[in-house]
Amino acid sequence: MNHLLGTDTLSREEAVSLLDSAKEFARVADQKMPKLPALRAVTVVNLFFEDSTRTRLSFEAAAKKLSADVITFQGQGSSLSKGESLKDTAQTLEAMGAKVVVVRHASSGAAHRLAHSGWLSSSVVNAGDGTHQHPTQALLDAYTLRERLYGENAAGVGLDGVSVAIVGDVAHSRVARSNVHLLHLLGAQVTLVAPRTLAPKGIDSWPVNYDHDFDRVLNAGPDAVMMLRVQRERMRGSYFPSPREYTKHFALSEDRFAALPEHTLVMHPGPMNRGVEISSVAADSPRSTILDQVTNGVWVRMAVLYQVSRGGQTA
Amino acid sequence: MNHLLGTDTLSREEAVSLLDSAKEFARVADQKMPKLPALRAVTVVNLFFEDSTRTRLSFEAAAKKLSADVITFQGQGSSLSKGESLKDTAQTLEAMGAKVVVVRHASSGAAHRLAHSGWLSSSVVNAGDGTHQHPTQALLDAYTLRERLYGENAAGVGLDGVSVAIVGDVAHSRVARSNVHLLHLLGAQVTLVAPRTLAPKGIDSWPVNYDHDFDRVLNAGPDAVMMLRVQRERMRGSYFPSPREYTKHFALSEDRFAALPEHTLVMHPGPMNRGVEISSVAADSPRSTILDQVTNGVWVRMAVLYQVSRGGQTA
Amino acid sequence: MNHLLGTDTLSREEAVSLLDSAKEFARVADQKMPKLPALRAVTVVNLFFEDSTRTRLSFEAAAKKLSADVITFQGQGSSLSKGESLKDTAQTLEAMGAKVVVVRHASSGAAHRLAHSGWLSSSVVNAGDGTHQHPTQALLDAYTLRERLYGENAAGVGLDGVSVAIVGDVAHSRVARSNVHLLHLLGAQVTLVAPRTLAPKGIDSWPVNYDHDFDRVLNAGPDAVMMLRVQRERMRGSYFPSPREYTKHFALSEDRFAALPEHTLVMHPGPMNRGVEISSVAADSPRSTILDQVTNGVWVRMAVLYQVSRGGQTA
Repeated sequence: MNHLLGTDTLSREEAVSLLDSAKEFARVADQKMPKLPALRAVTVVNLFFEDSTRTRLSFEAAAKKLSADVITFQGQGSSLSKGESLKDTAQTLEAMGAKVVVVRHASSGAAHRLAHSGWLSSSVVNAGDGTHQHPTQALLDAYTLRERLYGENAAGVGLDGVSVAIVGDVAHSRVARSNVHLLHLLGAQVTLVAPRTLAPKGIDSWPVNYDHDFDRVLNAGPDAVMMLRVQRERMRGSYFPSPREYTKHFALSEDRFAALPEHTLVMHPGPMNRGVEISSVAADSPRSTILDQVTNGVWVRMAVLYQVSRGGQTA
Repeated sequence: MNHLLGTDTLSREEAVSLLDSAKEFARVADQKMPKLPALRAVTVVNLFFEDSTRTRLSFEAAAKKLSADVITFQGQGSSLSKGESLKDTAQTLEAMGAKVVVVRHASSGAAHRLAHSGWLSSSVVNAGDGTHQHPTQALLDAYTLRERLYGENAAGVGLDGVSVAIVGDVAHSRVARSNVHLLHLLGAQVTLVAPRTLAPKGIDSWPVNYDHDFDRVLNAGPDAVMMLRVQRERMRGSYFPSPREYTKHFALSEDRFAALPEHTLVMHPGPMNRGVEISSVAADSPRSTILDQVTNGVWVRMAVLYQVSRGGQTA
Repeated sequence: MNHLLGTDTLSREEAVSLLDSAKEFARVADQKMPKLPALRAVTVVNLFFEDSTRTRLSFEAAAKKLSADVITFQGQGSSLSKGESLKDTAQTLEAMGAKVVVVRHASSGAAHRLAHSGWLSSSVVNAGDGTHQHPTQALLDAYTLRERLYGENAAGVGLDGVSVAIVGDVAHSRVARSNVHLLHLLGAQVTLVAPRTLAPKGIDSWPVNYDHDFDRVLNAGPDAVMMLRVQRERMRGSYFPSPREYTKHFALSEDRFAALPEHTLVMHPGPMNRGVEISSVAADSPRSTILDQVTNGVWVRMAVLYQVSRGGQTA
């Protein structure tokens, strides 16, 4: 694996191998071994054209735990404001010694262009591109589900038969897109829950069920409910319900949380809008995996950085 | 000591122990031993919701000298602008592996909330909260005084009988508040000098003298004069004298500096407004401790990070 | 060498020695030796009052490859907005332990003031001051030329008899100023090409030829053409040709590139304005040295940091 651009190009074998590799990094970390020398003398560039503190810091922590050097380049306040292109910026950073480029960009397809235009010889990791993909988020979500459901027996297995509801502005969510592909690949059954105006075009061809009635989906007792973050800037769009309507019909409110089956896990990629798409009772309950997701993000990103920097070799 | 939230909860023994620990770090640094492994594999988070380059860099330098990994999170340009709360931000960073959280916040009490709301298991160090406390500033001030007054014989002693004048906008100064507590704890005699409108409410119950006449205080020949920084944003308040009046009555001007006794030390927490609250002649004189304070800040913060990361154990 | 403030104060011997030292660092890096311990326990401060991501990251990469600790201080969002002076900022950072201060500032002469006002005992490296000097840029340009022309035989030699055309807004360019001095010192023949309104005052006393006709200069077949970046903010000045006129007469267009002799190298300090001062065909051709310049910048800055931190000693 030279790049990680999306979950749609992974094989099941590659995905399970990444999750297993992450589990191994978590195990080693638990033994308080300080730093692994795996990426010593390798420079990882964080190329962030969109603001994302938590994703950036998670990649930074992952790279440092592997002893890599990290260079962070943020779009604002940089040469981009002087008119430098994505291509020139990436080539410049590669010329300074970068071997892995982690890229976040507002344009769908930016990571693909970096990887496949012949501009770079570095490995490219997509840290979120427009409304397209955010593969490490999907991998950490799958990792978290697998750990909660199978614990010590998690290594090597997928998520066959696990039912997951993904709830919110599915149409504009790269988190949803990446999760749909990966969860399907791993054998899970996905239901998308969204107002009709926020269901993606072409959803009929996706390997998912769709429902606009959140309560009906909850009554079916899914293994996990994954709440999407409401993007405040989108709430002004005419396709978006009023905030009050949205919260009434699509939030994991106290009432809905109280009615959930005992076993249903509560997930959210963060940062949360408490009181908008999720209630604090749900977010802070023992069934919430939200902080686990953050912790697991570091192990998953270690696995990704490790595998892409080894390139075509088998792990 | 699990946290350092203010100087008001320190015992004299704890305070002297921190100063002694800082002195030991200074001694080791002087021997050009590069880095101490004390915090190897420990992640320290700088959680700065208020702009403060010098305090942030000082904590960063201190953490790195102890071999810690440092993650810096600045409020602006972060998830906070997406509506994430202090609690969620701190918990997220802890989930990424932080063991010590250094927090700077515009709200008085923010550090206490982080430490005592059950949100975190990390140690919390207050790097300045509103107008409340800035304990490492007070510790580095006390350290600097102790070194200048007692030098090689400084270890183990307090500041008994030392007279210190603190001058300026005392009402809104966390530096003043933290210093009053710590200097009193260490046995010093503190006089606050401020216009009546900038004297804190309830000053009668503080263990200090108060005077609005700076010249009278200087005539008494204090061991040190600690000038507070004028916060330009406060100068617009109706309680604030005009800039000209302020400088006339409360600045350490050339004339006042010339009239000072030989032994009086000149202190300032920085950054200075030269020509407003302090003249360059005073700031740059050999009796000024201003750059010493910066250097000593690194030793003091090493001591604090070291002690809180060891938690309840004795040093 | 205690400081590097400009190319105008270097001797030819010093310049060649820096280039040779850079070549040695490049050779060692090529052998995949990870990090050199040369600056272990030395703190390098990047003091950037002007936005420059690529220069800042290049110095940062160079310092880290020598095992230095790097502290980055950026003017915006710092104490400067609270009115702190260059002097106080630099002294504060030195008090925190800095041994080398790399400074970028909008005022011509800022680096000289830092080095020669008695404010600091640190070494000062000029990373660009106003329209005055940018010596590491000139050194990396000279290094790149020397490598392309002489390759394995480059060590120890200058650029005697090499012809270089520097094209663009010469009057306001510190890159041009630094290059004129250094190229002349190394024996090269420099021709400045600019509209009459963008030729520097006093150019008659410079050791260069001047021509406002770019095509005539290209017909003479120079060994290298160094295109200067158009500063968009200057294009609004009355002395500046219209963008269309500028591109027509002074860009390295497709046509001009096609007409160049085989051996002529194409240089640009970056970031480029593609389609303004340079065409993509020229920028991306094998004769372009633009990405080499970026890579070589790291070796040259390693050499500079190494030499100034050794101070007066011979290498």
